[in-house]
Amino acid sequence: MEVRDLSKYSGDSKVCTMLWERPVLKLIDQRKLPFEEVYFECKSVEDIGEAIVEMVVRGAPAIGVTAAYGIAIAALSFDGSQNGAFIEHLYKSIDYLSKTRPTAVNLFWALDRMKKLISGTGGLDTHAVTERIVKEAEKIEDDDLKINYMLGGNGLKVFEGAGPRLKILTHCNAGALATSGYGTALAVIRSLHKGGRIENVIVDETRPFLQGARLTAWELHQEKIPFFIISDNMAGYFMSKGEVDAVVVGADRIAANGDSANKIGTLSLSVLAKNYGIPFYIVAPLSTIDINTADGSLIPIEERNEKEVREVLGKVIIPEYMQVRNPAFDVAPADNITGIITEAEVIYPPFDKNIKKIFDSM
Amino acid sequence: MEVRDLSKYSGDSKVCTMLWERPVLKLIDQRKLPFEEVYFECKSVEDIGEAIVEMVVRGAPAIGVTAAYGIAIAALSFDGSQNGAFIEHLYKSIDYLSKTRPTAVNLFWALDRMKKLISGTGGLDTHAVTERIVKEAEKIEDDDLKINYMLGGNGLKVFEGAGPRLKILTHCNAGALATSGYGTALAVIRSLHKGGRIENVIVDETRPFLQGARLTAWELHQEKIPFFIISDNMAGYFMSKGEVDAVVVGADRIAANGDSANKIGTLSLSVLAKNYGIPFYIVAPLSTIDINTADGSLIPIEERNEKEVREVLGKVIIPEYMQVRNPAFDVAPADNITGIITEAEVIYPPFDKNIKKIFDSM
Repeated sequence: MEVRDLSKYSGDSKVCTMLWERPVLKLIDQRKLPFEEVYFECKSVEDIGEAIVEMVVRGAPAIGVTAAYGIAIAALSFDGSQNGAFIEHLYKSIDYLSKTRPTAVNLFWALDRMKKLISGTGGLDTHAVTERIVKEAEKIEDDDLKINYMLGGNGLKVFEGAGPRLKILTHCNAGALATSGYGTALAVIRSLHKGGRIENVIVDETRPFLQGARLTAWELHQEKIPFFIISDNMAGYFMSKGEVDAVVVGADRIAANGDSANKIGTLSLSVLAKNYGIPFYIVAPLSTIDINTADGSLIPIEERNEKEVREVLGKVIIPEYMQVRNPAFDVAPADNITGIITEAEVIYPPFDKNIKKIFDSM
Repeated sequence: MEVRDLSKYSGDSKVCTMLWERPVLKLIDQRKLPFEEVYFECKSVEDIGEAIVEMVVRGAPAIGVTAAYGIAIAALSFDGSQNGAFIEHLYKSIDYLSKTRPTAVNLFWALDRMKKLISGTGGLDTHAVTERIVKEAEKIEDDDLKINYMLGGNGLKVFEGAGPRLKILTHCNAGALATSGYGTALAVIRSLHKGGRIENVIVDETRPFLQGARLTAWELHQEKIPFFIISDNMAGYFMSKGEVDAVVVGADRIAANGDSANKIGTLSLSVLAKNYGIPFYIVAPLSTIDINTADGSLIPIEERNEKEVREVLGKVIIPEYMQVRNPAFDVAPADNITGIITEAEVIYPPFDKNIKKIFDSM
């Protein structure tokens, strides 16, 4: 078993989302945090699929990296030497993983990268293709971590002129756990904290899955960043009391016009922030921008298992005979967004024009 | 033991919030619904205090009625015949109950009614005063029920011109359980349903205490009114999808300018409704209007025990070492309110002028 140097993962963030121990991917089980720190072992592409569907791993960038390792595992675990069957197995694995979750575009972005790589390996044997795939997955993970630090740096620029210490509200978990480390929205908060600029982070608990109360709070606690947790419906109250200087969240898919899909409740926060004149920032890598989706109305919104709303950590709060709904995402309209912090630059309105400019130059 | 005719309570609403079995008040334990239907027996003014503080009973009108019965129980349980000591005991009981919860004005309104009644009984013996107090408490309960039916009727007027079948979003529980029966916001929904005009009720689960998921859903289920439950942070999503024709909620205290304190999250809903051009109605008896509070900034907001946020029905979701906040109410600004449905009339903007007119004529 080959173990890569993981020191970087535990660097600033003290959080290890995933451990690639070729040919196994170990994912910290995010269903069980902060009460248990156990790892879910993925030895097959089906394990990877289950981990994504069941939200052992979640967060757009982390899903992308996990899917890439899924294809690496598919290649490594291929039982045979016939090249045609091997390639077919890989494409089937890509197809299988592409159906695990619909909203986060990083999943499709990572799988597309794998598809392109495979289609460019004509003439190579299965061993050589496998090595290229594994390297590509490792590169996607490494790049994601580097990008997260760049997000943190660009986030600092946004708050250069703002008061010395900031009260920032965040929703869901856009932290190390949602990426290969360091985070997106939490990268900005981590960077601000390093400079002594965080007065408080207000963490939405983020029903139904409680990513805020369980995951973001756990990360902030690890790093001794001051925070308190609220029920989601309290955000407006704290905004109205002047307790929020900015809202900083991640994204699962950003349309070409800047409309940003993110965890359910983000839309409401964007409306509230606009109402109170509070800056509202999206933090995401460019891989989260889906240039082929014109606007937010075209982003598929996953409706997840009712059980997530019906139960809280296994405790039933709503009996079976009552109907519930569970849309997992909503879309913050571009109009409500102050800026989109990416690794390349901070994108400001008009988003359609400025997003196009970046993609045209790529 | 004297048992009053309770047929009216189970009439339309099939929900019995309280049973006055002189000298005992039985309250359905709202901490345990919908999983257990058990009654909490109040035999002393301290039992009443505990029931209000611990939210065995909640909802502004129900708290008012319960407090009135608390004074009746104080009178009935007085051990002595010395008139001065009796009156002192009553005033002490009033003072004690006035400290149970700060936001809902109906508590103070009911206790003030009792205070006035007592101050007008000079010359009467303890037995006669007791009988008057008991009658007054019973009258407060009876009046509240009558008023709720009038709220339902006035609510119909508001929706006269609206589409044949309505999708209404409500928050917390402003139902039979929040009153002596029938409800405030739910009185309007019940009345609409009787006329076949409810397509669906969207019920916010209402963290942290889950009054929506547990109490409102339970009431709607009893009456076969179609509904589904959502996490609080999903309201904006359904509004953005055109799934909400109106927001209808109760109130705990309405200031003289129309600013309306209600369960935490109401402020956010009012901002969202305004953003989407969705009518936003407050439904409350006139006793919820506090003419002596000029605007919402002067309404005291109760911050309740952290444990309510930390736990969901006894299941710990946030460990002790993490900080949480638990403001129990917020204030929907008058500007975001389409109308206030009272038993007298539907009050429209300008609220300050129109509220003054009603109170001047009283």
